[in-house]
Amino acid sequence: MFTESIKPFIVMDVLERAIELEREGRSIIHLEIGEPDFPTPERIVASANQALREKDTHYTDSRGTLELRQAISAYYMKNYGVNVDTKNILITMGTSPAMYVILSTLISEPDDEVIIANPCYPCYPNFIRLAGGKPVMVETTPEEGFQLTAEKIVSAITKKTRAVIINSPSNPAGTIIEEEELKKIASIGIPIISDEIYHGLVYGERAHSILEYTNNAFVLNGFSKLFAMTGWRLGYAIVPDSSVRPIHILLQNLFISPNSFVQRAGITALTEKIPEIDEMIKIYNSRREFIMNRLTELGIKIPVEPRGAFYFFINMAHVDKNSYRLAFDLLEQKGLALTPGIDFGSRGEGYMRLSYANSIENISEGLRRLEVYIDRNK
Amino acid sequence: MFTESIKPFIVMDVLERAIELEREGRSIIHLEIGEPDFPTPERIVASANQALREKDTHYTDSRGTLELRQAISAYYMKNYGVNVDTKNILITMGTSPAMYVILSTLISEPDDEVIIANPCYPCYPNFIRLAGGKPVMVETTPEEGFQLTAEKIVSAITKKTRAVIINSPSNPAGTIIEEEELKKIASIGIPIISDEIYHGLVYGERAHSILEYTNNAFVLNGFSKLFAMTGWRLGYAIVPDSSVRPIHILLQNLFISPNSFVQRAGITALTEKIPEIDEMIKIYNSRREFIMNRLTELGIKIPVEPRGAFYFFINMAHVDKNSYRLAFDLLEQKGLALTPGIDFGSRGEGYMRLSYANSIENISEGLRRLEVYIDRNK
Repeated sequence: MFTESIKPFIVMDVLERAIELEREGRSIIHLEIGEPDFPTPERIVASANQALREKDTHYTDSRGTLELRQAISAYYMKNYGVNVDTKNILITMGTSPAMYVILSTLISEPDDEVIIANPCYPCYPNFIRLAGGKPVMVETTPEEGFQLTAEKIVSAITKKTRAVIINSPSNPAGTIIEEEELKKIASIGIPIISDEIYHGLVYGERAHSILEYTNNAFVLNGFSKLFAMTGWRLGYAIVPDSSVRPIHILLQNLFISPNSFVQRAGITALTEKIPEIDEMIKIYNSRREFIMNRLTELGIKIPVEPRGAFYFFINMAHVDKNSYRLAFDLLEQKGLALTPGIDFGSRGEGYMRLSYANSIENISEGLRRLEVYIDRNK
Repeated sequence: MFTESIKPFIVMDVLERAIELEREGRSIIHLEIGEPDFPTPERIVASANQALREKDTHYTDSRGTLELRQAISAYYMKNYGVNVDTKNILITMGTSPAMYVILSTLISEPDDEVIIANPCYPCYPNFIRLAGGKPVMVETTPEEGFQLTAEKIVSAITKKTRAVIINSPSNPAGTIIEEEELKKIASIGIPIISDEIYHGLVYGERAHSILEYTNNAFVLNGFSKLFAMTGWRLGYAIVPDSSVRPIHILLQNLFISPNSFVQRAGITALTEKIPEIDEMIKIYNSRREFIMNRLTELGIKIPVEPRGAFYFFINMAHVDKNSYRLAFDLLEQKGLALTPGIDFGSRGEGYMRLSYANSIENISEGLRRLEVYIDRNK
């Protein structure tokens, strides 16, 4: 139910049109996709191959294997200094289903509200509607890095508020909620859903987990971004005691269990030294610095420096206030694919998301095309 | 939302208690699990290994790869003589999520109804409730093999009926809806959701797809049972034109895409000769015949001979009318794990599901334990 209110991703429309143009022989630079361009590191692949050879091809516990949950527990201790019991960890096929089952258990009445930032990841409002609730989009400013503040969250709370979703480092802006602000958010007292999928992809610092400041939180994380494992579909949720059983029952029914040998690969990712990870982070960061310099040359504004993920959210209102029209015009005219800001909410209008999950050569060529386009449309 | 009405599987409670007893050193015979005991055939495993070596580790189209959908289309032509366009095929991570997204798009009001058999697979009513609808459980008789008939479906239809779910061969009874009856069901005119997951696991005949008789149907199928790929989480839905886009949007949001290299393995399963398949079917059938003979010796009734899947639904009311109590008593007293009939609905009370996804040695020992138990409790 409620499926009529669920919107498609605009980014997928851009991608599909881009693929059409490529089929016609056009050269397209893809800076619209939020997916690592790297293949999965070799040791992780070898681990899945090994599991398959060992015939690890049956259902597992519907919560995920104890071994993977232990690895996640150890990972959170090592990286954040927080003690997470394995019973509070639930393995899912990607972070998206985890978000959906969490919201499904928090929302019980049709007008229950969940607070999200405007702009935010386009699926958040869809997940909330699909779970039967009402997304309350709180406008954020470029100066805030398009991140929610404790003050704004508190102002948006009503009797019907069931949770707030935060996302740091963020999609679409790559910005980080400062530690002091995160502490304030943690102390508000409503359930916090913290989407930590871009953790690890942070340049020259580290991101803090909401679990460092409160237990009244749901953490979402996974392997897609940091470990370049998008195609594997492996994620997890860390949830408070009272939510374990309801979410477990939902997972049993909806998914039976996560993939067996993919979970084995997840253990390897978290517990072994994966040399490619540091290398990938170094490369992302060099792309990030390259883009920052080029954008300055082009006179394009980025209000807050992105310090994580692999996105820039750039102000293009001086070229075209309508980001949807601009995205398709850039694609048709110059073969450059960017994601229109409107995909992330009304507050994203006038902006474009530029992903640097692509080679420096392609990024360089993409920015050259953008420069030519801007010059022509002055 | 609606998660409060979602029930856990009783079979999982049995399994968890069985595992506890095993940890204490007890010998347990597992005849409760609905999962092939065979490992995945070698060629299918090799295909996933190959895909991983080729770095096929990225997102795919959210509908699944065109290549896998083409393989499914060809498979339905070859096996059923029906022409399925690839655009009507959507790949999912197992059949369960496919069932859920289909129901979510068919159900739009909280009292929308979906007709199901009583007894049936325990997740059906849960899926319906989770999608916001109301399960209408229609009592079936042992003589009908616990299968819905066209007449009973018609009697249960109201203005709020949105669909009927059929399942042939069935879980829990392993029975098949006869072709003539299937034709009648197809002609009723309401959307039919046909769970065809046990197709292929049919002994000495073949099961018919609902698509042979109508296009107003949703087919669910997957790789878990026939190809012994439970741990891979790969399934698919074949849906009418008007449902493609709404389901596609849901899949984009909830799952982004199915696993990339698992889809490659799916292509191999459908398009290459997999020698283990015929062998597995032969073994299942010999177990089936063995059990049938032994049950007759034990004086246990099976009203309709199971011709598919890997289950017997046996009448144990003469031993204990309370199947839940009987299941746990059998487990504690004799170390024999069976699934209580009540797990499948009120009409399953007094019955037990016996799965023959276990070796003939274990089945034989399990039935010996059952015999001793019955003798003692006479």
